[in-house]
Amino acid sequence: MPNYKAPLDDMRFILNEVLGVSKLSRFKEFETLDDAAINSFLSEVAKMSEDVLFPLNQSGDHEGCKHDRDNKTVTTPKGFKDAYQQFCQAGLPGFSSDPKYGGLGMPIVLNTALSEMFCSANMSFGMYPGLSHGAYNALYEYGTDAQKDLYLPKIVSGEWTGTMCLTEPHCGTDLALIKTKAIATGDGSYKISGTKIFISAGEHDLSQNIVHLVLARIDDPSTPPGIKGISLFLVPKFIPDAQGAPGARNNVYCGRIEEKMGIHANSTCEMNFEGASGWLVGEAHKGMRAMFVMMNEARLGVGLQGLGLSEVAYQNGLAYALDRKQGLKIDDMGDEAAARGAVPIIAHADVRRELLTAKAQIEASRMLAYWSSLQLDIAHKSKDEREKTRAKKLIDLMTPILKAHLTDNAVDHTNSAMQVLGGHGYIKEWGLEQYNRDARITRIYEGTNAIQALDLIGRKILKENLLPVYLQEVKADLSAARAAGVSRAWISSVAREAAQLGRLIWRLRMRAGLTRMGVGKMGAVMRDAAGMSTDVLKILSLVSHGHMWIKMATTVKRVQKSNAAAPTFYTAKLKTADFYFSKVMPQTAAHFANIAAGSDSVYAPETDDFVHAQTTIGEKTL
Amino acid sequence: MPNYKAPLDDMRFILNEVLGVSKLSRFKEFETLDDAAINSFLSEVAKMSEDVLFPLNQSGDHEGCKHDRDNKTVTTPKGFKDAYQQFCQAGLPGFSSDPKYGGLGMPIVLNTALSEMFCSANMSFGMYPGLSHGAYNALYEYGTDAQKDLYLPKIVSGEWTGTMCLTEPHCGTDLALIKTKAIATGDGSYKISGTKIFISAGEHDLSQNIVHLVLARIDDPSTPPGIKGISLFLVPKFIPDAQGAPGARNNVYCGRIEEKMGIHANSTCEMNFEGASGWLVGEAHKGMRAMFVMMNEARLGVGLQGLGLSEVAYQNGLAYALDRKQGLKIDDMGDEAAARGAVPIIAHADVRRELLTAKAQIEASRMLAYWSSLQLDIAHKSKDEREKTRAKKLIDLMTPILKAHLTDNAVDHTNSAMQVLGGHGYIKEWGLEQYNRDARITRIYEGTNAIQALDLIGRKILKENLLPVYLQEVKADLSAARAAGVSRAWISSVAREAAQLGRLIWRLRMRAGLTRMGVGKMGAVMRDAAGMSTDVLKILSLVSHGHMWIKMATTVKRVQKSNAAAPTFYTAKLKTADFYFSKVMPQTAAHFANIAAGSDSVYAPETDDFVHAQTTIGEKTL
Repeated sequence: MPNYKAPLDDMRFILNEVLGVSKLSRFKEFETLDDAAINSFLSEVAKMSEDVLFPLNQSGDHEGCKHDRDNKTVTTPKGFKDAYQQFCQAGLPGFSSDPKYGGLGMPIVLNTALSEMFCSANMSFGMYPGLSHGAYNALYEYGTDAQKDLYLPKIVSGEWTGTMCLTEPHCGTDLALIKTKAIATGDGSYKISGTKIFISAGEHDLSQNIVHLVLARIDDPSTPPGIKGISLFLVPKFIPDAQGAPGARNNVYCGRIEEKMGIHANSTCEMNFEGASGWLVGEAHKGMRAMFVMMNEARLGVGLQGLGLSEVAYQNGLAYALDRKQGLKIDDMGDEAAARGAVPIIAHADVRRELLTAKAQIEASRMLAYWSSLQLDIAHKSKDEREKTRAKKLIDLMTPILKAHLTDNAVDHTNSAMQVLGGHGYIKEWGLEQYNRDARITRIYEGTNAIQALDLIGRKILKENLLPVYLQEVKADLSAARAAGVSRAWISSVAREAAQLGRLIWRLRMRAGLTRMGVGKMGAVMRDAAGMSTDVLKILSLVSHGHMWIKMATTVKRVQKSNAAAPTFYTAKLKTADFYFSKVMPQTAAHFANIAAGSDSVYAPETDDFVHAQTTIGEKTL
Repeated sequence: MPNYKAPLDDMRFILNEVLGVSKLSRFKEFETLDDAAINSFLSEVAKMSEDVLFPLNQSGDHEGCKHDRDNKTVTTPKGFKDAYQQFCQAGLPGFSSDPKYGGLGMPIVLNTALSEMFCSANMSFGMYPGLSHGAYNALYEYGTDAQKDLYLPKIVSGEWTGTMCLTEPHCGTDLALIKTKAIATGDGSYKISGTKIFISAGEHDLSQNIVHLVLARIDDPSTPPGIKGISLFLVPKFIPDAQGAPGARNNVYCGRIEEKMGIHANSTCEMNFEGASGWLVGEAHKGMRAMFVMMNEARLGVGLQGLGLSEVAYQNGLAYALDRKQGLKIDDMGDEAAARGAVPIIAHADVRRELLTAKAQIEASRMLAYWSSLQLDIAHKSKDEREKTRAKKLIDLMTPILKAHLTDNAVDHTNSAMQVLGGHGYIKEWGLEQYNRDARITRIYEGTNAIQALDLIGRKILKENLLPVYLQEVKADLSAARAAGVSRAWISSVAREAAQLGRLIWRLRMRAGLTRMGVGKMGAVMRDAAGMSTDVLKILSLVSHGHMWIKMATTVKRVQKSNAAAPTFYTAKLKTADFYFSKVMPQTAAHFANIAAGSDSVYAPETDDFVHAQTTIGEKTL
C-alpha cells in the first residue's frame, strides 16, 4: 500500500549543486569522480531500493525473523537472502572500502546517500550490511595485517557480515560494568565467555560467516578495573581454515531473539559466548578506543535511519493528503463551495503544517548529513593538515547532532505522517505505523540521545572545544549568503541564535576555568552542563539546520541569477526555507529559556519526591 | 513485568483538598457525598484496576481479538468476559447515570477518576464500557420516553453495550459526505444500509446486545444535502422483543476487524448495515446535534486515556530508573566514586528531565481533567443559571484542550518512559512499548487533534467567545495564590502568558469584526486563525496547566501554614511545580513566535512544491 521513490532530485541538488562533491576528484583516490558518475550511482541504488528492498519491507515486518531453538539458527524473512545476494553482486557492501581489500574506494558521502535510500526502503534490511561497516572500520584501523588480509576481503565482498557485541543484560550505557571475560590460551588466542544482548544481526542466514567484535575483560590480575580494562576481540562464528574458508563452528550461539516494537525483520539476538575462540583487536585494555571507531560511524548510520524513515513517511503522508478529500477550504465555505465538493486535505492548514514541519527539517537534515559525510571524506583523504583537522572537528561535533536530532525527528515525522492519514495511519496495511515503530529504536541504540547530548556538551564542546570552528564556518557561509541575496531575516536569525549559543558556551567554559581544569570545579560545572545538555543539543540542531538552509538558499539564488527560467524546484526550496525560519527555528526560544531557568529544578527533587502519589510505589497509606 | 498502582494520594489531594468535591453535596442528588465515600470509591476502583484489569493488559495485547468470518462474531481476549462481569456486578457501568434508569447517580468527576484508572490499567478494556457512555448520553438527551425506558436500564446495568457509528471508508472528519442511507418503512422504523469503519467495540462477546448509534442520511428528496441532512439512528444488534429481551438478529454484521498498531484487545470493526432495522433518535436531519452530545463526552474520555497511559508509563519508567544502575554521578566521578560503583540512573540529569517533564504535566493534567469534570457536574445540577452557564462555558472551552493536549502528551510521555528503559523500552516483555502503541490512536480518534485546534479557535474562541470567562477564573485564582504566598515568579508567569493570549485573541476578534460578522471577511481571518490554531491550542494548554499548578500550590501553601509537619508529599508538589515553570511553561515562547511569524509560510507552497524531489512522486527526470 505505501510507496517509495528515492528523492533523487533533492540528492543531486545537494551533492552536485550545493556541495560540488565531484570536486573530491582533486584527491587521487577519487580522480574519476564526476557528476555523471554520481548521478548514475544514485539511479542504480534508487532502483535497488525501490524495486528490490522496498517490496520486502511490509512483508518482512509481518513475517519477522524465526529462531530455531534446537539448531540455534535464525531465518530472515522471505526474499531477504535474494536481496542480499543482489546487493553483494552490485559490489555495494564495499562501496567506500579500500580497493586493497576489494572495495570500490568511493566517497563516504555517496555511501551516505545509499544508506538513506536503503533505510527509507527497508531499514531492517539495511541494518545487516550496516553493521558490517563498523566491523570493517575497527579491523581496518586496529587489526593486524594478518587479520586484515584474512577478514577484510570477505567483509568487503559481503560474503561475511559483522556485528558489534557491547551490551550485556546488566549494562548498556555503562560499559565499565562489562563481565564477559577473555582467558588467554597461550597460543595468541583467548577463550571468550559471557552473554551479550541486543546484538543486531547477531545470527542470520544471509552470509556464510559472521564476524563478532566483542568487548570483554581479560581475566588477569593486571587488568585495570572499569573502562580501562576493556579489550576488543574478534570472534568469528566459523573459524577460518588454512584457506580462509569458514571452518570449525566456534562456541558462540544465539540463545534467543527479542520480540520488539519494530524492526521485526532484523534479528536482535542474545549471543552466548561459551568459551568461544577470540583474537585481540588492537592493544589489550584499549578496547574502548577501537569501540569508538565502530561507534562513530554507527551513530552517523543511525542518524541516516532516522532521515530515511522521515523521508518515506513524509512521501506517504503527502500522497494521502493529495488524494483524500475531506471538507472545504477554510476561506471558501459558502454554498457554491459546498456544491463543488470536498477538497484534498492538503488544502487544510494543519495538514500543511504537519507536512511542512517534516519537509523543512528533512531537507535540511539531508543537507547536514551529506555535508558532514563530505567532511569525513576530506578528513580521510586530505594531505593538508589544517584542512584535515578542521574537517575532523566538524564531523566530530556534528555526529551527536546527526544521531540524536535526526532520530528524534524521525519519531516526530513518522507520527506526523500517520496523523495526516487519520484513522488509516493507525492501520497496519497502510504501512505508516511501521515507520513509527521502526523509528522508535533509533532514539535508543548506539548511545541513547541523552548520551549524545552529554557527548556533545562534555566531550565535543567543553573538552575538545569544537564549537568555534563550526561557528567560523557559519559566519563565512552567512557572508556568502548575504552576497548572493539570501533573505536578510533568515541570515539574521542564524547569526543571532549562533551568537547566543556561542556566548552561552563561552560563559560555561569560563566558569569551568578550562585553562586550569580541576575535577572538583569541573564537577559543579558539569552538573549544570548535564542539566542543559539536551537543550544545547537542540539549539545546535536548530541552528545547524538553519545554517544548511542558508547554504541551500545561497545556491538557489545563484542558480536563479544565472537562469531566469529556473524550475519551480528552486522557488519551492525558498518557500520551504521560509517555513523553517517562521515555524521551526523559533523553538530555540524555549530551549534558551530552559537554560536561563538553571538546573536547580532538575536536581531538587529527592528520590522519594518522584513518587508523586505516596501509594504509587510501595505501601498504600489509606 | 510492568506494574500499576493507582495514584490514590494524588487523586485524593485533588478531589478532597484542592477541589473539595464533597461540596457537591449541596445538590440534592449528591446529598450523601463526603470525603469518606469518595475515598472508599477510589479504593474500590483502584483494586479492580490493579488486580483485575491490569493483569489482562499485556496478555490482551498479545492475544488480540479474533474475528470468526463465518459467524461474523468477535471473541475478546481471555479474561475480558469475567472482568466485564465483575465490572457490571460492582454497578460501575451506571456509576454516574440517572437512578431513574438504575444508575448510581454519582458525580461525573468521580467517574473521571475511574476512567483514568481503567485506562492506566487496561485501555483496550476501558473502551468497551467507555463507548456505552456516549450511547447513554445521546439516548438520554434525545431519545423518546419509550426508547429510554427500553434501552437505558440495559445500558446502565452493562448488560447491553453501545457504539458510535460515524466513519465511513471515504469520510471520517467530513461527515457531510456520509453515504449510509435510511429508508422509511412506514411503521416508524427505517431500513439502514451502508458500511461504517473503525467502529470500536462494534462486535464482541462481552454483552448480550449491542446498541449502535448510527449517522445516516434519510433517503428522501426532502433531505438537505451535506451535514444538514444527517440523522441519528438507533440500530440494535438484536431487536428487543415484547419483554425487552434480545429478540430477532438484526441485519448488522461485523465484516472484518482491523489490524492496528495497538489497542489489540479492543475490536475495531467494519460494520455492514444490510437493510438493518433502525429507529430515529431525535429529529430527522438533526443528527449532528445528537452526535455532539456523544462526542463531547467521548473527547473527555479520550483525554483520560491519554492521562491514564502517561501515568502508567511514568510509573514504570520511574521504577526502572530507581532500580537500574549505570554510571557515576556527573559531579562525583573520582576513583573513590568508581570504587563505590554505579548509581541508579535516577541520579542522571536527563533521566530526571524525562521523568519530571512527564510528572509535571501528568499532575497538572489530572487536576485539569478533574476540575473540568467538576464543571460538568455543576453544569448539570446547578439551579443557578449564572453558575450553570459559567460551568458549561468552562467545560466547553477545555474539552479540546483535554482531548488534544493530554493525548499529544501521552505519546510524548510514553516515549519518555521507554527512553528511560533504554533498549529494554523497545522490548515487548517490558510492557512500555505497548503504552506508546496504545497511546498513538488517542491523537487521532474522536476528532484528530488538528480538528480539536479548529474547534477551539473557530467555535469556542471566535464564535462563542469563551476565553474571557476562563481568564477571569485565572485572575481570581492568581489573587488567591498571591494571598496564600505562592511563588511570585509562577504567578507572574501565568498572568503574563494568559494576558498575551488574551490580547492575541482580542486582536483576532477585532480583525474579524465579530460584532458585524460577514462570511467574506470571516473567511480571511479564519485562514489566519486556522494557521495558528495548533499554536493557540498549545498556548492555552500550557497556560491552563500552569493555572492548575497555581491552584495546587495554593492548597499546598494553606496546608503547610496550618501544619508545620505536613508530609513531604506537599513539598514535592512545589518542586514539581518549579520544574513545570522552569522547563515546560517556556514552550509558550516558541508558539507565540510561530504566531508572530504569520501564516504566509503555511499557505505559500503550491501543491507541486510539496513534492520536494521532482522525482519523488511522478516521473523521474533523470
